[in-house]
Amino acid sequence: MKKAVAEFIGTLWLVLGGCGSAVLAAGYPELGIGFAGVALAFGLTVLTMAYAIGHISGCHLNPAVSIGLWIGGRFDKKDLLPYIGAQILGGIAGASILYVIATGKAGFELGGFAANGYGAHSPDGYSMLAALVTEIVMTFMFLIIILGATHSKAPKGFAGLAIGLGLTLIHLISIPVTNTSVNPARSISQALFAGGWALDQLWLFIVAPIVGALLAGFVYKMLSPETE
Amino acid sequence: MKKAVAEFIGTLWLVLGGCGSAVLAAGYPELGIGFAGVALAFGLTVLTMAYAIGHISGCHLNPAVSIGLWIGGRFDKKDLLPYIGAQILGGIAGASILYVIATGKAGFELGGFAANGYGAHSPDGYSMLAALVTEIVMTFMFLIIILGATHSKAPKGFAGLAIGLGLTLIHLISIPVTNTSVNPARSISQALFAGGWALDQLWLFIVAPIVGALLAGFVYKMLSPETE
Amino acid sequence: MKKAVAEFIGTLWLVLGGCGSAVLAAGYPELGIGFAGVALAFGLTVLTMAYAIGHISGCHLNPAVSIGLWIGGRFDKKDLLPYIGAQILGGIAGASILYVIATGKAGFELGGFAANGYGAHSPDGYSMLAALVTEIVMTFMFLIIILGATHSKAPKGFAGLAIGLGLTLIHLISIPVTNTSVNPARSISQALFAGGWALDQLWLFIVAPIVGALLAGFVYKMLSPETE
Amino acid sequence: MKKAVAEFIGTLWLVLGGCGSAVLAAGYPELGIGFAGVALAFGLTVLTMAYAIGHISGCHLNPAVSIGLWIGGRFDKKDLLPYIGAQILGGIAGASILYVIATGKAGFELGGFAANGYGAHSPDGYSMLAALVTEIVMTFMFLIIILGATHSKAPKGFAGLAIGLGLTLIHLISIPVTNTSVNPARSISQALFAGGWALDQLWLFIVAPIVGALLAGFVYKMLSPETE
Repeated sequence: MKKAVAEFIGTLWLVLGGCGSAVLAAGYPELGIGFAGVALAFGLTVLTMAYAIGHISGCHLNPAVSIGLWIGGRFDKKDLLPYIGAQILGGIAGASILYVIATGKAGFELGGFAANGYGAHSPDGYSMLAALVTEIVMTFMFLIIILGATHSKAPKGFAGLAIGLGLTLIHLISIPVTNTSVNPARSISQALFAGGWALDQLWLFIVAPIVGALLAGFVYKMLSPETE
Repeated sequence: MKKAVAEFIGTLWLVLGGCGSAVLAAGYPELGIGFAGVALAFGLTVLTMAYAIGHISGCHLNPAVSIGLWIGGRFDKKDLLPYIGAQILGGIAGASILYVIATGKAGFELGGFAANGYGAHSPDGYSMLAALVTEIVMTFMFLIIILGATHSKAPKGFAGLAIGLGLTLIHLISIPVTNTSVNPARSISQALFAGGWALDQLWLFIVAPIVGALLAGFVYKMLSPETE
Repeated sequence: MKKAVAEFIGTLWLVLGGCGSAVLAAGYPELGIGFAGVALAFGLTVLTMAYAIGHISGCHLNPAVSIGLWIGGRFDKKDLLPYIGAQILGGIAGASILYVIATGKAGFELGGFAANGYGAHSPDGYSMLAALVTEIVMTFMFLIIILGATHSKAPKGFAGLAIGLGLTLIHLISIPVTNTSVNPARSISQALFAGGWALDQLWLFIVAPIVGALLAGFVYKMLSPETE
Repeated sequence: MKKAVAEFIGTLWLVLGGCGSAVLAAGYPELGIGFAGVALAFGLTVLTMAYAIGHISGCHLNPAVSIGLWIGGRFDKKDLLPYIGAQILGGIAGASILYVIATGKAGFELGGFAANGYGAHSPDGYSMLAALVTEIVMTFMFLIIILGATHSKAPKGFAGLAIGLGLTLIHLISIPVTNTSVNPARSISQALFAGGWALDQLWLFIVAPIVGALLAGFVYKMLSPETE
């Protein structure tokens, strides 16, 4: 139960911090933080939670991460559904808080919120195929970083740093393509508020991250040193 | 006494570095550091002091942090008032140094200095309610990060990194809403120089951070592993 | 074999992440990440891989690094060719994935991809001599950082941080001069796609990094404390 | 002797990396790294060298740092002159390499190079008094960070991170005021190339950092825990 509460709070923070920085601060005239600032914000939500709640729940904050860790042999199957449930609910809670804040600005228009999209709804007009490749490969590499940095042979304590900054890196690359998901809970939370096309395209941001995570789980098992 | 001096110097640095980067460097034409640079500066004041004076005073630099740590069972009630006093005085000292530097530029206009505000004085026009929610939630999460990352089960040595970068993250999200406080000492120091509306609105930036910190102290106590 | 696979994946990530951020995200109107974002992305590819695969292969991801470590007495000559082969193939694989994603944008023009160049193909018009000096000196310092930070007397665990952020620093300085290589595998991967002038100028981005790395290997051997 | 060589290389890197990023990359149209990128570059020169050569020479790279550490009781007086000599020569060597690279661009104009200045030569027109206060206070805090983070009670291994990012923070605040020195070796190296006003104003960037460092040495001695 404590683990589920921790995942709930952590995913709330990921969505409020990452999507919040995008909605509230990215496009502020002259002084806005841009895509680089949003990339940093997403990464820091994970970095801060890794040190704050990592010792409680492991700090997954992402259904694809929980699934990849399970395939990689690092996470117990019986905890899979409670974790994913807490992540999705936490994401929605984070989006709700963001909605309350964002609508406190006169003339605010919701638009696509910080929803993920492809084709006409890709920030820079990338095709569905490009979006699919991007989300699969980015999630694959995210799980390789997670599985590697939390391995018993990796330097102790640095995993939260590597994983958080890894999410920053993923956003530095791929915000123009899909607005970057690699996390179904994050995508669901925004699509519920944005509605319309965001819900129509949501399938890709559930399927692709999970496919990438599954592949990474299998590959890392072959790659990793035998001593666990 | 050494602890109070450390808190004084640290809070001086938080205000001089964070508010200073905002006043002196954020809006420089073409090359200015923008909100992202200010967010980084605020976080680095805490990160640097965490390693420099953390072993002396614990490096709170913020009345809301001292209060949250007290509720969370990590800080002795008898030190609360000396810490808060040193933080407020340190903040004013930092603001005074900043004032001396800033007025050394011909044609400098004080304006709102780096004061916090809502409504007409929110950088991007957010309502009082949005400001209240923002400051409560951001301070709540700041304390969750602090209480979690300094827990005995968290990786040793990384707390300063997680907490400092957590403050950077909070600024990446919320500068457009309130200019970001989460710290009554920081807000008081700027309002004293800015006067007028900044003093009128100061109550929110004292009340909301303290409410957020109290809530976090209670929640974390329920959430944390029993072995402290 | 596991080591070669790790180097392959790692160099794929370096090229996909570093060059990908440059091609996809640097020049996005208003919100783009600019050279600073690209510099951060390159560094974070190395930082993340250092913690993820450092315990498998040492995380070189760069023929010049493997050569410098060999001269510095830290890497076995017999592994040199397999490592370099895996790095070059990984770089090409990363460039291929990037090509698939990038061409998914309507109206995409390949141009020079993220190839390195000098003279007319230097981003800011720097001469061949300036490019040569830059690439030799930057790779020299990169190897000094690597050899120093992985020395047995350096603080444990921090090498991945210092080396990754060292590559960020190198890009902050030298993108305008050569688009920054310091890594023949990265340069080869882009030149193969860009063709033309990029292939004509490729020699410099193979020769200069290797010269810089050789010099650093010799200098560090003289400089380092005797206890290894 | 090894220590002096290490200080020479490290200070070369500080000037080449920090001033180099300013001269070569800060003002590139649209994509330039701006003051925030320069701030990051300066900090990363120190961070990378701290892990690379910290175990050889302590990584001062700055006469004011050596003097402050001496007053603070952490550095032997007999090494003071060799260190300062190596730092000044290293700074000049770094500036010379930068000069060779920078002049490889057609139409390059030296201007003030990356020299420090006040009054008419302050980037944003700050007075001599503002410059003096800024350089004294910034160097004071830099030394407080250094003395604190390298104290035996501070977390092991993190000093390089705190000190490097502390220099980044100092630049985020004060580039508009003086172009940020806090380091006589850095200022001397640029003034020798820029000549004219930069030499006339050089005294301030030698005196103020040393005054700030002396003050910090005395204050920290009073402040620090007795167990060293």
